[in-house]
Amino acid sequence: MPKTAKEPVELKEACVLAAHEVIAERGIEALSLREVARKLGVSHQAPYRHYATRDHLLAEVMRRCFESFAQSLDKREHFDDPSEDLRSLGQAYLHFAASHPLEYRLMFNTPWPEKADHPALVRDATHVFNILRNVLARVHGSSKKATIDLDAMFIWSTMHGLASIMQSSAMHHLDMQKSVPGRVMPHVMEMIRGAMSSRHS
Amino acid sequence: MPKTAKEPVELKEACVLAAHEVIAERGIEALSLREVARKLGVSHQAPYRHYATRDHLLAEVMRRCFESFAQSLDKREHFDDPSEDLRSLGQAYLHFAASHPLEYRLMFNTPWPEKADHPALVRDATHVFNILRNVLARVHGSSKKATIDLDAMFIWSTMHGLASIMQSSAMHHLDMQKSVPGRVMPHVMEMIRGAMSSRHS
Repeated sequence: MPKTAKEPVELKEACVLAAHEVIAERGIEALSLREVARKLGVSHQAPYRHYATRDHLLAEVMRRCFESFAQSLDKREHFDDPSEDLRSLGQAYLHFAASHPLEYRLMFNTPWPEKADHPALVRDATHVFNILRNVLARVHGSSKKATIDLDAMFIWSTMHGLASIMQSSAMHHLDMQKSVPGRVMPHVMEMIRGAMSSRHS
Repeated sequence: MPKTAKEPVELKEACVLAAHEVIAERGIEALSLREVARKLGVSHQAPYRHYATRDHLLAEVMRRCFESFAQSLDKREHFDDPSEDLRSLGQAYLHFAASHPLEYRLMFNTPWPEKADHPALVRDATHVFNILRNVLARVHGSSKKATIDLDAMFIWSTMHGLASIMQSSAMHHLDMQKSVPGRVMPHVMEMIRGAMSSRHS
């Protein structure tokens, strides 16, 4: 195998891209360092220079999903009114889920690698959750952590469920009026706003 | 292969159980009529007596999940007060999701079989959704279909998201206060109640 001074960094990056491809094509169960090496046409040992185990590579793939998700949420239209900003955040969340189904599944429908610690993954996942926490702190005008986390869990649940259901087969077979699917997203946003208001009344 | 008069019915049933096992052990991608035949120790052709394609068998496996889900929801504690009944329904939903993760995934996280019509599957899935619709018709004191369907989509989204997130790895790495996970479920129920009340105020 030809080597250059640059090659190790390129291989490290190439492993992430190849892992992403393996998962996209054959599912997460098919991911192994051996399979990544095969795809890249390098020796079976080569990926081990950069990733101690398959789980370390998977953690890096997942971390990048959270990183790109955070960037996408940060690019939303921002509003001074925190309720408006929450709605905008929800829309950006649903847009990412719909336009990046594989990345979305990797973040939230995939068991995290267990066999090693992955602080960078935890850091970038927490960063995404903190975007929601920060908007909620403005909605509440306070920073009481448990209150914010409970509301964050409610809103995250609703967004995650909606994103999943909009992609599922089931909802298209439930004999709903034709107007309903197109109205679901704004309705859910309005219900979240109503739920949040009910806490202050 | 020895045959008895009873055998065909038994084989039909055995195929469903074997398909369930294949999915549990190796994932839905591994399901094929050939694999089911292998598991049962019958000829490759035998399952075709009862299921025209692999998708027909999968549809029957999924249908039974909806059937058993409906039975579980119907066994919830019933309340005359429709808001209480809605809360009870939500709890029964989350209990089923947590105690039957495979069945739950098959219903809501699996693409439905496409290559054939499966009216029994649609009927039993719609029956589950109608349980929620019926409670909501009592909450609203009306039967305006689009309103009920929109609220049903909001509540289903929230329940589905919560069920999924409670089983996900992510929520255990977000630096939440220890008290939060145990309080999430009642908090979400309370937020749904608040959202529903806000529509009438």
